[in-house]
Amino acid sequence: MKLREAWVKKREKDSNRSQMHYARKGILTEEMAFVAEREKLDAEFVRSEVARGRMVIPANVNHAGLEPMAIGINTRCKINANIGNSAVTSDIPKEIDKLSMAVKFGSDTVMDLSTGAHLDETRQAIIDHSPVPVGTVPIYQALEQVHGRPEELTADIMFEVIEHQAKQGVDYMTIHAGVLIEHLPLVSGRITGIVSRGGAIHAQWSMKHRRQNFMYTHFDRLLEICKKYDVTISLGDGLRPGCLHDASDEAQFAELQTLGELTLKAWEQDVQVMVEGPGHVPMDQIPMNIQKQIEICHEAPFYVLGPLTTDIAPGYDHITSAIGAAIAGQAGAAMLCYVTPREHLGLPDLNDVKQGVIAYKIAAHAADVARQRPGARDRDDAISRARFTFDWKKQFELSLDPEHAKALHDETLPDEYFKEAEFCSMCGPKFCSMHISQELTKLGRETKGMREAKKQERQERLLKS
Amino acid sequence: MKLREAWVKKREKDSNRSQMHYARKGILTEEMAFVAEREKLDAEFVRSEVARGRMVIPANVNHAGLEPMAIGINTRCKINANIGNSAVTSDIPKEIDKLSMAVKFGSDTVMDLSTGAHLDETRQAIIDHSPVPVGTVPIYQALEQVHGRPEELTADIMFEVIEHQAKQGVDYMTIHAGVLIEHLPLVSGRITGIVSRGGAIHAQWSMKHRRQNFMYTHFDRLLEICKKYDVTISLGDGLRPGCLHDASDEAQFAELQTLGELTLKAWEQDVQVMVEGPGHVPMDQIPMNIQKQIEICHEAPFYVLGPLTTDIAPGYDHITSAIGAAIAGQAGAAMLCYVTPREHLGLPDLNDVKQGVIAYKIAAHAADVARQRPGARDRDDAISRARFTFDWKKQFELSLDPEHAKALHDETLPDEYFKEAEFCSMCGPKFCSMHISQELTKLGRETKGMREAKKQERQERLLKS
Repeated sequence: MKLREAWVKKREKDSNRSQMHYARKGILTEEMAFVAEREKLDAEFVRSEVARGRMVIPANVNHAGLEPMAIGINTRCKINANIGNSAVTSDIPKEIDKLSMAVKFGSDTVMDLSTGAHLDETRQAIIDHSPVPVGTVPIYQALEQVHGRPEELTADIMFEVIEHQAKQGVDYMTIHAGVLIEHLPLVSGRITGIVSRGGAIHAQWSMKHRRQNFMYTHFDRLLEICKKYDVTISLGDGLRPGCLHDASDEAQFAELQTLGELTLKAWEQDVQVMVEGPGHVPMDQIPMNIQKQIEICHEAPFYVLGPLTTDIAPGYDHITSAIGAAIAGQAGAAMLCYVTPREHLGLPDLNDVKQGVIAYKIAAHAADVARQRPGARDRDDAISRARFTFDWKKQFELSLDPEHAKALHDETLPDEYFKEAEFCSMCGPKFCSMHISQELTKLGRETKGMREAKKQERQERLLKS
Repeated sequence: MKLREAWVKKREKDSNRSQMHYARKGILTEEMAFVAEREKLDAEFVRSEVARGRMVIPANVNHAGLEPMAIGINTRCKINANIGNSAVTSDIPKEIDKLSMAVKFGSDTVMDLSTGAHLDETRQAIIDHSPVPVGTVPIYQALEQVHGRPEELTADIMFEVIEHQAKQGVDYMTIHAGVLIEHLPLVSGRITGIVSRGGAIHAQWSMKHRRQNFMYTHFDRLLEICKKYDVTISLGDGLRPGCLHDASDEAQFAELQTLGELTLKAWEQDVQVMVEGPGHVPMDQIPMNIQKQIEICHEAPFYVLGPLTTDIAPGYDHITSAIGAAIAGQAGAAMLCYVTPREHLGLPDLNDVKQGVIAYKIAAHAADVARQRPGARDRDDAISRARFTFDWKKQFELSLDPEHAKALHDETLPDEYFKEAEFCSMCGPKFCSMHISQELTKLGRETKGMREAKKQERQERLLKS
């Protein structure tokens, strides 16, 4: 989309180029208009939502290929796919394949969480190829620069990395500014301690130096960079629970309070913010978690990771967490960060990315339907109609993964004739309820026709008498 | 378990051999004691729950190999796996493989929904091999006997089949006695009509003959057979919705009222009953559906199919429905009937059965945790401890599918050394938050130790001064 470069060019000289800044000045940007169109929302409403911070449009001025999208409680529920290499595995072409796979199946944003080799090149390649917003966690690169020794990190090293990534076109960045030194003793009763990588790094730095988190004390410096490039801050939840046992504890909610403070600080400078959330949470605690974030963080969009609703199914955590994600979406989470089948076991490969994205499209869509968003159920109804009329082709087309659905269907049928038949191998021809039900509809219509005819006859008789 | 034959032998001459009958007479059967042990419940409590109909123990007197289990709101949430052939595909050894797979991964009951060839032999083989209760839908076999022509069905044919299957040892049977002729016009506004096979057959019979459902009018005859063999009735929801659009409509709830009536009728004869439920339901309507069933059906156990929370993901309906099933379980459904990835597309194969069972074990377990059943989270906590201490072996052992978890883990690591390392390919050694967090715990302990020492020093000084 070359258009975006032209949009951005016009704002070249502005000192604050964030969507929030324009929105608050009453300016409707092209990005807002684009988003309004995509979401079938009134453009002025989009502007007002961005202005009050309840909706973000992560759109770095240097991400030329971006097709702007919005995250917030008043838009469709979004999903994010984490890609990126690790020291153990993957390379740039593989990461671009993962990006394409994620976008093909409907991921709304991607995060490059690379921690391995060629960090800059990988990130640039992802941004250049991505039509969706790209997020990062800058502390990973900062840690590389100090050879993996957290205690050697400094604010200067960190901000150099942040500005560099902002220049590259990163649309949103996870910043763990809420992990305060006074929160650290609160994790002592946990089973799994601190499971956020960024959170653990900051914690270690604070413990070694006996000093406050430098991203908290230097938060204003971050805001200056965000204004310049319109980087949306994603306030990381460094103390999120890593298992059901640790969910909703004091450490988690102490950090959330800090994230609420930082949200207001960012908004003072018209910087866009979303807030990250757990993780691992029993189902019954999920709506409470969402409600708390909405209140404490002043309705800034909530971006949750799953949450997993049980810890007993490694290898299937796309499912354990899709359950939690759907409930979170229904309760008001704005974006759901996917979890793949490989979570807790290794770096996701291409198929893991696909499985994760599909599970989360399901969760986000189920949440949209449950929130009764206008039009959310249209696709469900269309596919149901196709199903009832045995329009297999249409049914496949309307499904999240047409090739897979068709393959599963065709596989169990002996030949071409059967593949288009008005039944499938589940019930066979005699037991197909849809088939019987269609006949019933005909019967019903005849009966209704007979009844109508009789009624008319009776009325005519009455009129004559 | 040869024991069971001995238990049953003692009751040979009783005219009503249902668990409910004994429970109401104040007799604690061996089956109840066995269940109490499994569920870690008080045996007297189990008896009282069975007596009031809130818990069922499906245990046909002729199912010798059965290991008794219970279904009800005060036990662990259960899952069922549907197996069985169709006219298009599968044979007996394949069905026994499916049974073994379902039981291996934790299915609490199985239903033989065969509609193809060798119905009797298949059913007998499944019963003989199954340690879990076996359910059937007798109308499938009855329809075979009239060569697939619903209008030729009669009560006599149906009851002959039911008695025959009861003799074989079927533990519970789905009976669509609630599909009344007066309900049929209520489905006219639906997209997918009647999607229950049994429901559609009864509807067609009623429409052709202009007569009331013969299973409703002959319900007493059914009860006589159930008393004799202790067959638990599973009141089928023949008018369940087949898509989101049709959920919670008049037809569905009209039938539910009838199922409530029939529940009381069965209880008058001390016959055990559970009630089947939907199907396809948007997330926001699920708790209401469960609450309604509990009220209208006097707390008889609710046995739901999914429900699917969106219709747009054929090929992944184990996920779309695991979301709904977990919510249903949390809201009080007693048993969750699985849906496999092949739903709507074809007859499940062996791998589909496995995928379905695992998705539903996840849903049922997440529901148990959310209902805060005593001990439900123990396994989660144990696996989390193993995870934090990098005890991979234990982590795999405690997981729902150890082989799969281990395979996913090992696959991404280059050699044996790495496979037991204190990190995985997700983050590599430098970025492993668990690793950092462990160091932090040590640091924390040292700090705490220093603080304690200082405190003591201060106190000693004070005492001296």
